[in-house]
Amino acid sequence: MRVYNFSAGPSTLPLEVLEKVQKKLINYENSGMSVMEMSHRSKEYEAINTEAEVLLRELMNIPKNYEVAFIQGGASLQFEALPLNINKNGKADYVVTGIWAEKAYKEAKKFIDAKEIASSKDKSFNYIPKITKSMIRSDADYLHICQNNTIVGTRFNYIPEAGNVPIVNDLSSCILSEEMDVSKYGVLYAGAQKNIGPAGMTLIIVRNDLLDSTHANCPTILKWKTHTEAKSLYHTPPSFPTYVAMEVFRYLKKLGGIKVMQKINEDKAKMLYDFIDNSKMFSNNIVKEDRSIMNIPFVTPCEELNEKFLKEAKAAGLTTLKGHKLVGGMRASIYNAMPTEGVKALVDFMKKFEKENK
Amino acid sequence: MRVYNFSAGPSTLPLEVLEKVQKKLINYENSGMSVMEMSHRSKEYEAINTEAEVLLRELMNIPKNYEVAFIQGGASLQFEALPLNINKNGKADYVVTGIWAEKAYKEAKKFIDAKEIASSKDKSFNYIPKITKSMIRSDADYLHICQNNTIVGTRFNYIPEAGNVPIVNDLSSCILSEEMDVSKYGVLYAGAQKNIGPAGMTLIIVRNDLLDSTHANCPTILKWKTHTEAKSLYHTPPSFPTYVAMEVFRYLKKLGGIKVMQKINEDKAKMLYDFIDNSKMFSNNIVKEDRSIMNIPFVTPCEELNEKFLKEAKAAGLTTLKGHKLVGGMRASIYNAMPTEGVKALVDFMKKFEKENK
Repeated sequence: MRVYNFSAGPSTLPLEVLEKVQKKLINYENSGMSVMEMSHRSKEYEAINTEAEVLLRELMNIPKNYEVAFIQGGASLQFEALPLNINKNGKADYVVTGIWAEKAYKEAKKFIDAKEIASSKDKSFNYIPKITKSMIRSDADYLHICQNNTIVGTRFNYIPEAGNVPIVNDLSSCILSEEMDVSKYGVLYAGAQKNIGPAGMTLIIVRNDLLDSTHANCPTILKWKTHTEAKSLYHTPPSFPTYVAMEVFRYLKKLGGIKVMQKINEDKAKMLYDFIDNSKMFSNNIVKEDRSIMNIPFVTPCEELNEKFLKEAKAAGLTTLKGHKLVGGMRASIYNAMPTEGVKALVDFMKKFEKENK
Repeated sequence: MRVYNFSAGPSTLPLEVLEKVQKKLINYENSGMSVMEMSHRSKEYEAINTEAEVLLRELMNIPKNYEVAFIQGGASLQFEALPLNINKNGKADYVVTGIWAEKAYKEAKKFIDAKEIASSKDKSFNYIPKITKSMIRSDADYLHICQNNTIVGTRFNYIPEAGNVPIVNDLSSCILSEEMDVSKYGVLYAGAQKNIGPAGMTLIIVRNDLLDSTHANCPTILKWKTHTEAKSLYHTPPSFPTYVAMEVFRYLKKLGGIKVMQKINEDKAKMLYDFIDNSKMFSNNIVKEDRSIMNIPFVTPCEELNEKFLKEAKAAGLTTLKGHKLVGGMRASIYNAMPTEGVKALVDFMKKFEKENK
């Protein structure tokens, strides 16, 4: 029996997608082989690669002057790639809103004059700082933000006004969860393993004028242009994860696109936050307007109850609810593929648990 | 119907493995989820990750003073990682035996004093140069070789005598195909997509004394120690490819290990080379003692016949036989998972084609 899996990533995928993938696993579309076995230079794989890009462009309404690539290495590899790829003045500004945003900042410091222009570390990252134009250096090569912070459960609910400084946005844990105006950003990147597909694929979306200020010594594999010019096929791509991503994109399109997905996501999040805010046992300490709709951490008043909760929830088929070790307690990651019924089942379980343990 | 797929990578996988993966795709071992959906911090995934390492150590007889990691980025990313990880004197020697070996060399030149100490480029890479100790700089940080050259179809049939200079060996297209003495090397690395599993996972095996001379500015994700210390779980690993790799390792163990696999591989290669060498139509121009047992390129006397061959072979269920664009003609990649029957079917087809077209 399938469980409701609240993992922060890799995370639950639409059952419909998994069933399709399973059916075609050994013989994809009469090719006589699995997608896992396909040359990335074959017509069959090129069709997958192209369809994945076309669908993503449609879903996100990506303007024509942006390039897209599906590559290896994880979002973490982009922490290094970024300061080497946009390297005009050798300086960039970072907003530190969580552990991953901080890692991005620290890696950039190895190569360039990276500046932390704002941080929410003073309050354990439980809010998103307000960024104004005057905080950003006008000659910064870019401003880096992380839109949704997986561990603490915050999210930017606004687009910083950065003037001519391009905004680079790590979308790993919120991509495709809500409509966004891609044209407001210079670069978007995301690991696949939350809202896109299986781990091992990283998505980059780059405004094409930002492909030409790469540092002379940038390793070929880190250079975005290597991948955008080769349409993701410079070297062996993460082909199976990209294929599953294509099936996820098809699924989202069939559902009605990101607008429809966003409404479902907002409703799911509201259901859980409303219950938590009215509960006498459970709480979430994130500043309300900065709350994530993807990752919702919560605690009971004591460690023992947290542990009891996790154990009993697991037995009830509600799994991977343990919070990140840096935060503790519980975290429900309710990405696109978590059905409304899963959130309902969690809220029902929380109600019951509160009643039984008051 | 399944075809015989001679792709150079991603390439054919054992049918038995694919069937297992298919069966468990939606609900792995009663976890209620797919491996694709599993948190890499879950007990279930940790068991996969651990078993993959244990089996690999057993299959390759990896000494205890070597660390193993399953990471993202492709073997190409290791071209950059290598000179940053073994960085004592900032110099290293390279043997250039093909396009990929040359790429490794060129990337290293961005960071260190890399020297091409030998190359077979003078004869279109159709042989492996003899490396003697006097050719290697005694203060080189390492000697880099590529054991099997996928595009041209050559292979080192000897281990260079390098004294105290550690040998770094790119095993991407021959790992697990024949027995080898790991202790003769400092570092082994390989992309998964030929003999290990689906694309997206890269394997590194590093002698542990080589983990401590990393360049101060080495990006965290490129640093081998980041991954070996975290047992491949520093950030999200390429979990699904690693899982399939574990199933491949199980399969190889059941088969009787690498010794048995090697015998099968040698027999398959002999069957094809013997036919080619006795044919009046087909030829292979690689120096005999340097021939690969994994990748076997061959040509007919003219381009038109090559094209006819490829077309008719495909119609007969023998696919992805087209040679690399730099070499032309045909190439049969007969990795571990290519059954003997597949090579037999290819040879039978070649016989028939020769007869019909003489």
